Amino acid sequence: MLLHLPLDGQGPLHAQLTRALRTAMLEGRLVEGERLPATRLLARELGLSRNTVLEAYEQLQAEGCVQARVGAGSFVAPGVLAASAPVAAVPAAIEAVPAPSAFAARARRFHDHASIPGRTMPGMRHAFQYGVPMANATLTSDWARALSRAANHAAPSYPPVQGLPALREAICGYLSRRRGVQVAPADVLVVNGTQQAIALTARVLLDPGATALVEEPQYFAIREVLQIHGAELRTAPVDGSGLVVDAIDLPAPRLMCVTPSHQFPTGALMSLERRRQLLDLAARQGSWIFEDDYDGEFRYDARPLAALRSLDRDDRVIYVGSFSKLMFPALRLGYLVMPRALARDFINAKWADDFGSPAIEQLALAGFIADGGFERHLRRTAKALRARRDALLEALRRRLGARLAIEDSRAGMHLVAWLRDADHAGCEALVARAAGHGLALYPITPFYLRRPPRPGLLMGFAGMPLKDIGPAVSLLARCMDEVLPAPRG
Amino acid sequence: MLLHLPLDGQGPLHAQLTRALRTAMLEGRLVEGERLPATRLLARELGLSRNTVLEAYEQLQAEGCVQARVGAGSFVAPGVLAASAPVAAVPAAIEAVPAPSAFAARARRFHDHASIPGRTMPGMRHAFQYGVPMANATLTSDWARALSRAANHAAPSYPPVQGLPALREAICGYLSRRRGVQVAPADVLVVNGTQQAIALTARVLLDPGATALVEEPQYFAIREVLQIHGAELRTAPVDGSGLVVDAIDLPAPRLMCVTPSHQFPTGALMSLERRRQLLDLAARQGSWIFEDDYDGEFRYDARPLAALRSLDRDDRVIYVGSFSKLMFPALRLGYLVMPRALARDFINAKWADDFGSPAIEQLALAGFIADGGFERHLRRTAKALRARRDALLEALRRRLGARLAIEDSRAGMHLVAWLRDADHAGCEALVARAAGHGLALYPITPFYLRRPPRPGLLMGFAGMPLKDIGPAVSLLARCMDEVLPAPRG
Repeated sequence: MLLHLPLDGQGPLHAQLTRALRTAMLEGRLVEGERLPATRLLARELGLSRNTVLEAYEQLQAEGCVQARVGAGSFVAPGVLAASAPVAAVPAAIEAVPAPSAFAARARRFHDHASIPGRTMPGMRHAFQYGVPMANATLTSDWARALSRAANHAAPSYPPVQGLPALREAICGYLSRRRGVQVAPADVLVVNGTQQAIALTARVLLDPGATALVEEPQYFAIREVLQIHGAELRTAPVDGSGLVVDAIDLPAPRLMCVTPSHQFPTGALMSLERRRQLLDLAARQGSWIFEDDYDGEFRYDARPLAALRSLDRDDRVIYVGSFSKLMFPALRLGYLVMPRALARDFINAKWADDFGSPAIEQLALAGFIADGGFERHLRRTAKALRARRDALLEALRRRLGARLAIEDSRAGMHLVAWLRDADHAGCEALVARAAGHGLALYPITPFYLRRPPRPGLLMGFAGMPLKDIGPAVSLLARCMDEVLPAPRG
Repeated sequence: MLLHLPLDGQGPLHAQLTRALRTAMLEGRLVEGERLPATRLLARELGLSRNTVLEAYEQLQAEGCVQARVGAGSFVAPGVLAASAPVAAVPAAIEAVPAPSAFAARARRFHDHASIPGRTMPGMRHAFQYGVPMANATLTSDWARALSRAANHAAPSYPPVQGLPALREAICGYLSRRRGVQVAPADVLVVNGTQQAIALTARVLLDPGATALVEEPQYFAIREVLQIHGAELRTAPVDGSGLVVDAIDLPAPRLMCVTPSHQFPTGALMSLERRRQLLDLAARQGSWIFEDDYDGEFRYDARPLAALRSLDRDDRVIYVGSFSKLMFPALRLGYLVMPRALARDFINAKWADDFGSPAIEQLALAGFIADGGFERHLRRTAKALRARRDALLEALRRRLGARLAIEDSRAGMHLVAWLRDADHAGCEALVARAAGHGLALYPITPFYLRRPPRPGLLMGFAGMPLKDIGPAVSLLARCMDEVLPAPRG
């Protein structure tokens, strides 16, 4: 054997041989100045054609690893040896490495990727998981068709940073018809979901140390993005009329993040009075409002409510909608209605982030909205969600009325169930026991910055098939009986 | 007429009426405490069914704009008046508004959205535009099919932040077969193109004021993203062997951005010697290297060259590839090979940015790579690009050999043509004259931080059909004859 040159079986033979020779150099089995085997010999040895060997040698020569000398053969080039030092030890525990920037340090501190609230628990029979979409074969096939059509029509070049005009127009029509928001396509920025909306907002509005308000309780991801961007976080409580505006300390925070049409997670609807108060406060203090209308579409007692943005006379509201909840989260598309005074800054920030969202999915969505498919889907989904919610409420009241206080907002894809006769330790024991029985439960604790007043569960119902709701509630009841004291009264 | 209530014709009648009534309140035509017309009367007046009017009133009641009093009718609720103040004047010139954050201020200063270099000029017959993809009917139909298949198979829930495992595996296989880079799926982060790769890198590595190096000349968008993130920018020159590493001032910048396999825009190939020097410098000084392998696939003289990352023994190289150049820019997908020590920080930053890239396009791309379609596409494209490059070189040498010094890198999708007998003013005059004749030319100036040593053109040929190359070069020759002095010699 001339040289140990194991081929890895991937791709063309000349490329395999090139890699094997390069590895031999890096590992020091072929050293600087050494003559490579004659091509004819090596070809015979390895059972390859001579052309294959020649091609590998030429490639290594082009890379500068090999030098050919006329009449003398090919030699390992100077410099190859230096690169063949053993790989430096990579730290096993990343915690041992100091964070490379203040941003990275804050991300490590405020975001624990291993324990995102509400994530899928493996091996469960039933899950009251929030944020999962309803399985929907009609939407899947409609969307596959829309994508395929769009792929044949979308321009292949860079899409406009702000979003395709066709999609921005379709969004304006939808907002006008369904959400009472009258805006022009020039006001709309297409983004990759609510997460990008809050990240861009943080970069555009908040220098490190600037104040930002979240409702208490709140959606954890918005809170963490603000913290990661160095915001000084404030909170104000929520009651049955939404955010308690009077409880906001003055001077008002630079940015106030709210969920007026369906407070997350309590489900409260912000009253007109509070909306007016909040807008007044923002106008007076020069604050900005981030209105997260994440699921305002799905109401079961009235038409969808008009958004805060539709009452805004002072250009202070950043209105944000997402197709994650309305269609499915794998899509990663949403939009942001920009205050005019910030439009240029938002478009700059989007440019600096990713040049714009993918064109084919934008065009598919524009078509899906324009041809009425999207709103048909919303009607079908609202009907199915309502059936699941009714079944869940009925089962919870019948089986667990004495143990649970249910916060039902007549809207959305989840409800909050407070445990009447348990403390936080009892709630943790319940969640653990339920997991043991194949039932995934989600405590409300991660959605509070401070400890919630009492233990509770965030119960998502969009992902649970109607027929499973009864059995899942029975299982919940069994777990409560096993773990918690008997209910009073 | 009871009240002027113009319906806007969009969507269901009750929603139109709700909007019209809301507008009347906001405009002060219906004031606080005023009684709304009786439903029966209003229905008759407007020619609507009474149910439609009832539905609108109920909606306004749910919104808190209207109060119903039993037996007395419906009244405009208190608080509506306050919201009906005229819209505050939105500043006409955004320049008058101070930037809302240091990030936004830097974005205004360093990024001029209206003049992105290389953008499409409207109404041109021919364009030597860089960054446009080759028109490709096979790719379009292959991709439409891949998308449609993926839409039927992708999980609808949130994709993994780091990217679909199937795509990360496919990328590793591709990198091993074609680029000599051996990495594991755990090292790969799927991103929305090179722009997101540099933005994440800036946030993970650079506090404001940290030093970052770009080659001079360089790709303008990477330079601007670094500036927008507050980096203190350094440059080092490029010669025929790539970045002149010896010219980097010590201490070395924290981040060094390079294009070793095909320097952008000059086309230089970084020598093995320089690669080793750069890796040594980074290891010694604790710097990080951003290796932008934007079009290393397309070489016309040898197999594609092995990447810098494949020589990296010290875990200092962030290797970045994009499918914008290899497929089409509308796709917005790329990847980043993370140093192990930074992996957690990169994944956190991606989470904070958008939760992860769209799942369906990721799955479609994974399939396209795994089934060999992607590499077949690369071979077809390389062949077609080579034909265009050969035709362009031939035409330029024949028609304009005396006027142009051509920097041909035997790779990529562009070349650089230096003007022999013109100054910068002459070049500007040439570009203007050419535009007047329907020929889009792109000066090299925006790719230099300082003024380039002599005037030149960046000539992209991927977007120009083969048959147009001769006519376009003839037109260029005519414009040069009209605008520039006769060539010497």
